[in-house]
Amino acid sequence: MANIKIAFVGAGSVRYTLTLISDLCKVKGLNDSSVSLMDIDEERLNAVYNLAKKINDVLGANLRIEKTTDLRFAVEGASFVINTALARAEGHEDGYVQYEIMREVGEKHGYYRGIDSQEFNMVSDYYTFTNYNQLKLSLDIAKVIEKYAPSAYMMQTANPVFEITQLVLRQTNTKIIGFCHGYGGVFDLIETLNLDPKKVDWQVAGVNHGIWLNRFLYNGENAYPLIDKWIEENSSKWEPKNPWDAQLSPASIDMYRFYGMMPIGDTCRNGSWKYHYDLETKKKWYGKFGCIDNEIERPKFYEALRVYKRRLIELSKDDKVNLLDVFPELKRESLSGEQQIPFINAIVNGEKQRLVLNILNNGIISDIPKDVVVEVPVIVDDNGIHLEEIKPDLTDRVKKFYLTPRIMRMEFAIEAFVTGDRRVLEEVLIRDPRTRSYERVKEVIDEILNLPFNKEMKEHYSH
Amino acid sequence: MANIKIAFVGAGSVRYTLTLISDLCKVKGLNDSSVSLMDIDEERLNAVYNLAKKINDVLGANLRIEKTTDLRFAVEGASFVINTALARAEGHEDGYVQYEIMREVGEKHGYYRGIDSQEFNMVSDYYTFTNYNQLKLSLDIAKVIEKYAPSAYMMQTANPVFEITQLVLRQTNTKIIGFCHGYGGVFDLIETLNLDPKKVDWQVAGVNHGIWLNRFLYNGENAYPLIDKWIEENSSKWEPKNPWDAQLSPASIDMYRFYGMMPIGDTCRNGSWKYHYDLETKKKWYGKFGCIDNEIERPKFYEALRVYKRRLIELSKDDKVNLLDVFPELKRESLSGEQQIPFINAIVNGEKQRLVLNILNNGIISDIPKDVVVEVPVIVDDNGIHLEEIKPDLTDRVKKFYLTPRIMRMEFAIEAFVTGDRRVLEEVLIRDPRTRSYERVKEVIDEILNLPFNKEMKEHYSH
Repeated sequence: MANIKIAFVGAGSVRYTLTLISDLCKVKGLNDSSVSLMDIDEERLNAVYNLAKKINDVLGANLRIEKTTDLRFAVEGASFVINTALARAEGHEDGYVQYEIMREVGEKHGYYRGIDSQEFNMVSDYYTFTNYNQLKLSLDIAKVIEKYAPSAYMMQTANPVFEITQLVLRQTNTKIIGFCHGYGGVFDLIETLNLDPKKVDWQVAGVNHGIWLNRFLYNGENAYPLIDKWIEENSSKWEPKNPWDAQLSPASIDMYRFYGMMPIGDTCRNGSWKYHYDLETKKKWYGKFGCIDNEIERPKFYEALRVYKRRLIELSKDDKVNLLDVFPELKRESLSGEQQIPFINAIVNGEKQRLVLNILNNGIISDIPKDVVVEVPVIVDDNGIHLEEIKPDLTDRVKKFYLTPRIMRMEFAIEAFVTGDRRVLEEVLIRDPRTRSYERVKEVIDEILNLPFNKEMKEHYSH
Repeated sequence: MANIKIAFVGAGSVRYTLTLISDLCKVKGLNDSSVSLMDIDEERLNAVYNLAKKINDVLGANLRIEKTTDLRFAVEGASFVINTALARAEGHEDGYVQYEIMREVGEKHGYYRGIDSQEFNMVSDYYTFTNYNQLKLSLDIAKVIEKYAPSAYMMQTANPVFEITQLVLRQTNTKIIGFCHGYGGVFDLIETLNLDPKKVDWQVAGVNHGIWLNRFLYNGENAYPLIDKWIEENSSKWEPKNPWDAQLSPASIDMYRFYGMMPIGDTCRNGSWKYHYDLETKKKWYGKFGCIDNEIERPKFYEALRVYKRRLIELSKDDKVNLLDVFPELKRESLSGEQQIPFINAIVNGEKQRLVLNILNNGIISDIPKDVVVEVPVIVDDNGIHLEEIKPDLTDRVKKFYLTPRIMRMEFAIEAFVTGDRRVLEEVLIRDPRTRSYERVKEVIDEILNLPFNKEMKEHYSH
């Protein structure tokens, strides 16, 4: 029996919380844990609370589930705090609304996809420079954890995972670890190549949304030639199955050819402007949808999320619904593929797991600053996190021409946030390939700071 | 008596060679050295040879001067090789002609000041990406030195000093050191502030054309407040005395305010695009001339250099001329301020000197890769080069937001040159704030590669 408490902060991100609750119910050694669901949105909190309890019943688990709008109450006594909280402005349906408004302001001033879309960070909801609200919220949560649950793991799940994990590590003593499922692209690759996953020896390394397949062996032999063969024989026929399907896209292959290793998961969405100038360019490099980070697919995705969330809220009030019909995955024994519950199970019950986590570099990847958060595979068990040697090393091109500028932008975001010096934000845009003049830089930043939901941000950057 | 041989490679850069010859004549412990003047341009070689001999006579020195068009002959037996060689295309008056042609091609495609003008490298004759000819020439010279004078110091004086020094260190065993007089900006600053140079304790660190005043004490006390006071009282009245005068320009002060340390010498010419969008912008930040790196002042400067060189060539044929009239500095006892001869004097005669040189970092500047060439103060004597501790350290902003991207561009230039992979050149432009499309990138590179004097470069980048 696990006598532990797991807090879900921002539990009102209904779908994601329920996925993790399902995982939790399916793990024998954890399915009697105490779960505290916390959100400031009572409607959503009630919905997720009701659905979580139903899932618990359907799966015959024994979770002790509580709900609260009080952060301190949620984290006190918790060993694990899963943070999915996304800052949301008053009156907005979700945090994405402000992202889309800021994107529009950016586009008005000539910044296609908004000023946060940057070389090596083109993912549409990974705002780092204008995202004062989200960084502040995450840091505040970390400080509450530091004070009231100092030995808890803060499992950072909401984006931007890289910047938030880094910021919290620099500003608090909270034990934060960044979680992302992007490394799963390895399995897409393995499936595409028709390989037996059990015979593949793989390793990835980099930073969040910027990881590279440094090791890829099949039956102990270099399997990169299998990728080359696939490219030669199949890449011209490749079509994306959906807007997210990009692991074998022309962009991904182009990046592989330039950097010398295969980009994994979201990494190929995070190339340079070459693949992103406009929708036409995106379609050339990512197929007919132009990937998910564009003006057609991204709003559709947000709308679908909202429709689904509204439906879940309705469902939560309907006592007659059969959850197994709504969530067919509940019938499966296997977990969702998310890493949070396996991590907890490893720490609590010693069920050894290989996971890909965002932790302090400290020399894991050579030539990358030690104080930077990297995403690397680790073994987790009840003795904690055990590092793997990164072998072979990442290529020089990955390190010098991809990770270095990406890390520089992380440092810019942290420096801006920590100092409140708006010249740092300006400097980011001065170096931006979409900038035409310094006047334009000042204008776009002014307009973003003057948005009603950025009042606190404006105050912060006015000193 | 100094029984040493000093080779001047590219001695036909008449004026510069004569300055160093004058210095050599003035140093007692060196003025009987053997000097080998080497150039492939016989007219200029003869001119510099004749004038050097006259200077030697006028100053009563005892140099044994020879001239040669054979590089191996020049460097064999030399302890020091001063390399001022600038690649020049057949039919061009000097190496600047091809720079200006390539700049024009760049501007035709929307790249103001050409594609080599880049963030933190706006100096007009510091070509790094299109400069295959110069990098190749310099590396070839280094290889001849490696073979025929393996213990000689290669004193790299021609630009781009940073990239050439780095390239030669990575590709040969030649003992190369990069020389630049840019650190002299410290003395301009000291003069402007009306300080007694003897009471100033200063230190600079960074990379060539990117050095920062990390230590500035007056009578042992922090002298930065004196800079702040000068800015407050005088900066609004500041006017440049000439196009080169930029140490106290608004750009320099703006960089100081952002990066937290004063940029020294050429560094303030090497800011981001904020100061360089167009001539109007340049005038705003550098005063009425818009500094020396623009479409008005730079061609004027090249033309003046050419006129002066032609005049020197004429003079060299005129036996009646009194050199003391032409070079009034010959009458002064003091040296020119160039560091090459003091360096040789320190090594040969143990005359201890504090110099600012470009050498391998190897931990001198923390958080900067060890294998990168940095520009730092050192003490030189007959035991060699002795490092100074960099104290206080450079600011985080200087390191993370200035040196890191500048070093990345150096690495791009080296990677392109070493691999012959034109995608590396493309990638530089994809990340360039002036780029509008990938098509444009390919076009401008194609046109540059198709220039007649870039035939070898085109071949190199065609694999």
